[in-house]
Amino acid sequence: MKVNKNYAALEKSYLFSEIAGKVREFSAKYPDRKVYKMGIGDVTLPLVPAVTQAMLSAAEEQGNAKTFHGYGPEQGYAFLRDAISSYYRSFGVSVDSDEIFVSDGAKSDLGNILDLFDADNTVLIPDPVYPVYVDTNRMAGRKIIFADALESNGFLPMPDERQEADIIYICSPNNPTGAAYDRPQLANWVQYANKRGAVILYDAAYESFIGDPSLPRSIYEIEGAKECAIEFCSFSKTAGFTGTRCGYTVVPFALKREAMSLHDMWLRRQSTKFNGVSYVVQKGAAAAFSAEGLRQIAENISVYRENARLICATLDRLKIWYTGGQNSPYVWMKCPDRRDSFTFFDFLLQETGVVGTPGSGFGKNGEGFFRLTAFSDRDTVSAAMAEFQRLFA
Amino acid sequence: MKVNKNYAALEKSYLFSEIAGKVREFSAKYPDRKVYKMGIGDVTLPLVPAVTQAMLSAAEEQGNAKTFHGYGPEQGYAFLRDAISSYYRSFGVSVDSDEIFVSDGAKSDLGNILDLFDADNTVLIPDPVYPVYVDTNRMAGRKIIFADALESNGFLPMPDERQEADIIYICSPNNPTGAAYDRPQLANWVQYANKRGAVILYDAAYESFIGDPSLPRSIYEIEGAKECAIEFCSFSKTAGFTGTRCGYTVVPFALKREAMSLHDMWLRRQSTKFNGVSYVVQKGAAAAFSAEGLRQIAENISVYRENARLICATLDRLKIWYTGGQNSPYVWMKCPDRRDSFTFFDFLLQETGVVGTPGSGFGKNGEGFFRLTAFSDRDTVSAAMAEFQRLFA
Repeated sequence: MKVNKNYAALEKSYLFSEIAGKVREFSAKYPDRKVYKMGIGDVTLPLVPAVTQAMLSAAEEQGNAKTFHGYGPEQGYAFLRDAISSYYRSFGVSVDSDEIFVSDGAKSDLGNILDLFDADNTVLIPDPVYPVYVDTNRMAGRKIIFADALESNGFLPMPDERQEADIIYICSPNNPTGAAYDRPQLANWVQYANKRGAVILYDAAYESFIGDPSLPRSIYEIEGAKECAIEFCSFSKTAGFTGTRCGYTVVPFALKREAMSLHDMWLRRQSTKFNGVSYVVQKGAAAAFSAEGLRQIAENISVYRENARLICATLDRLKIWYTGGQNSPYVWMKCPDRRDSFTFFDFLLQETGVVGTPGSGFGKNGEGFFRLTAFSDRDTVSAAMAEFQRLFA
Repeated sequence: MKVNKNYAALEKSYLFSEIAGKVREFSAKYPDRKVYKMGIGDVTLPLVPAVTQAMLSAAEEQGNAKTFHGYGPEQGYAFLRDAISSYYRSFGVSVDSDEIFVSDGAKSDLGNILDLFDADNTVLIPDPVYPVYVDTNRMAGRKIIFADALESNGFLPMPDERQEADIIYICSPNNPTGAAYDRPQLANWVQYANKRGAVILYDAAYESFIGDPSLPRSIYEIEGAKECAIEFCSFSKTAGFTGTRCGYTVVPFALKREAMSLHDMWLRRQSTKFNGVSYVVQKGAAAAFSAEGLRQIAENISVYRENARLICATLDRLKIWYTGGQNSPYVWMKCPDRRDSFTFFDFLLQETGVVGTPGSGFGKNGEGFFRLTAFSDRDTVSAAMAEFQRLFA
């Protein structure tokens, strides 16, 4: 039996496991010191009442023979796909319910979508970026090239005609930099992809943090995007579903390559290697997009936005350079005193107990930068910013 | 961009979609006639009270900041992996909690596990079989050879030294035939795999239907299995989780190939392309394996077992040949009057309204056979068997 040798070429440990190890070490050494976790992008606010109530009702239904649900429809229940379609419509995007596939999360779909593509494709990935894009392609042995996201381009690389990309990753608002493309910039990427016959994998996991109406919340706001882009989104950051698990992927009917419909291929993939999301979870997700649910999740998002504002205000006061934090839960700061990312991580943890994420963990262009997330509770953010003020003032 | 061309070679439609289409057509044509669904292997009894109660409590927890759970541990919560490990211990099998990976279902894991293997492997699949084994390998372009499951070998093929298999699928109790290997037979497969350096993918989704103590409920009852086998199991049939979605896969520490640990590879795969199962669902699954939960799910299984007994008793009376139905929810009958499977499907639907699954949908050796499932409610089974009595007596 031959194993998939590409696994041997993967770097040993996943970024966040390494950080967790360092934090465990710190806490063991200094059991009395506080740790302010602003590293991993996990939410802290509970599910909103509309969602919890829907999940409670659904669990009751599952315990009753008359209302019990077994296997669900292959792409997800119509009540949820219709709710997602309406959500898109609320910001002016038309997506057919049958173009939507419900899943257990964007991370699964971002990995599994690669089943549809030949190993012999060149993949263009921004650097720095969410490490999963790189690892999932390395697992298949695909050639990877990078689009440099730098301070000089506002961490928003634009297409370079000399780069011959077949599959293009875009994450906007970006993880880790918090930078978000505007419509003309995104239109440039759509043109580039359509010209080349490439496919854009558009990660919109953070779209609900966009407040600026000049920024697109979906790639389908751009003309021509349905001919080249697959969009991934999630209830994780929108409705606090990190531990509840639900996401959705849009594969437009119009997206065809080499005479194959990518929509039909994805349907075939999902109906063969996946069996849908828990009825209880789908009911909860649909409730997040009810009128009441939308009001409640907007309140939660405004709490995280205010956290981001507090972080930005502190960095402004301390004259520390950063991007993000406006239309994103992530603040991407430059490490003070030209420290490299991991040295700064260790220094900050040691001096203040604040845990962030070293920028170099997201790619070589992340070196010298540091990611803070706004998903912590308010007390943690306030205390962490007081520590920043004390240390850097 | 090059698509994965193997998708073009897949047969167009999935067996159960085709059947659903035929049933829709029948109901549209004869709106007043009853349809007795004994085709797809979906459960009909609701979740047991212990599970529902645990899910209700967990949903409450998720709505409260003090008890909220975000991202869970990569392999699943320890409370669930420990419960699964104890479940194994209850029938004499020792599996370490850290060898267990919790997922959203066996179907996902059975497809995704193939990421670990090179496309250049020969896959041995029984015929007839659950169509997903074939399709998932065709998607990767692997060479497939078949092990003939025939009336003459009790639908339990044994290893053939002349077949050079690298990856071997075994499903016992089998879907669709209901046939189950005994320990000496399974030991033969383990020996064959270890001798060849092959890997066995052991689908134990129906183990909870085994009543005969001489039949193994896990491949790990066999010496040497931890060096060659991955076991897939599910709460779907054990605890009625078809619409709730939870399964588990055991990748033993001892399973190594070409100097790679398949356990470590699967951990890397899952932590990169998957983000765990809903906390609420994991709590429900763990409750199924509590003392109270085990008692309640055993009651449900005995209802399905009694359904199977009713089907078998009817076929015995009518002198229709069949296998399965003893340690399995599936009854695999020979089509009366030498009809082929799809002709019999149409005939039976037309004459009685009973929906089963044509054996040929599971492979060429399924031709002339027909699968009935015991997962329907008692009224459906009784009415369907009365129709059988009327038609075939």
